Amino acid sequence: MDKDNYYMNLALEEAKKAYLLDEVPIGCVIVYQDRVLSSFYNRKTLDRVATYHAEILAINDACLKIGSWYLDECTLYTTVEPCMMCTGAIIQSRVRRVVYGCDNHDFGYLSRLENKKIVVTPHVMEAECREVMHRFFQDKRK
Amino acid sequence: MDKDNYYMNLALEEAKKAYLLDEVPIGCVIVYQDRVLSSFYNRKTLDRVATYHAEILAINDACLKIGSWYLDECTLYTTVEPCMMCTGAIIQSRVRRVVYGCDNHDFGYLSRLENKKIVVTPHVMEAECREVMHRFFQDKRK
Repeated sequence: MDKDNYYMNLALEEAKKAYLLDEVPIGCVIVYQDRVLSSFYNRKTLDRVATYHAEILAINDACLKIGSWYLDECTLYTTVEPCMMCTGAIIQSRVRRVVYGCDNHDFGYLSRLENKKIVVTPHVMEAECREVMHRFFQDKRK
Repeated sequence: MDKDNYYMNLALEEAKKAYLLDEVPIGCVIVYQDRVLSSFYNRKTLDRVATYHAEILAINDACLKIGSWYLDECTLYTTVEPCMMCTGAIIQSRVRRVVYGCDNHDFGYLSRLENKKIVVTPHVMEAECREVMHRFFQDKRK
């Protein structure tokens, strides 16, 4: 299995944990030197804290584990395109590469960014990442 | 003393605490129903966590205190114009009004935003907020 697919699959496992907890199913994994440093799912509704997106929680944990706010040797995998807040956090933490699953047409921000420093790889395991989101919002409408 | 000046002065007191700790001197206060809910200063360098800007820490604390990720009845006072990450966090938390001190020409993002839902009041105690930042970076250059 391709490396990006392998790590995206781990992020998707996080998203599925959120789904089972009735939380918007977005997962994030941060990889450093070929090992997983942090894995989180979105906890905004569960913890009632507006900033607790999977990416923010994973970045915080990664900084604490590395002991530095500089994550320039890390790759961030997230199942859905990051929003403005998370895109800003990626810039703040100097994450070098971001891999994401499906686009977020309403709140996605990373793809609109004119920042040549961050290498972005979109649409890895796109269908699977979209499917869990689609199922979640379909359940909500019922 | 005008209310905005009163709360901005409290945010400036936070910024000055950061200055004394050799941290980029930015302070933030969140006000809810005419009382201060959260007061923080930037802790990014101190804690080595990229997202620990004063605004993020204050928003997290305010959500935990109110028990909701919805801060739509709050006003956020910050000594410096918020960056992209903090602007995104303000949007995520539905803060209704933001008052800031001085512009941030390099990393400020709030003033570039086309968002009619957030009421923005810039340049409250501008000179004082700029002065503490200016002094900090002047010290650094020495």
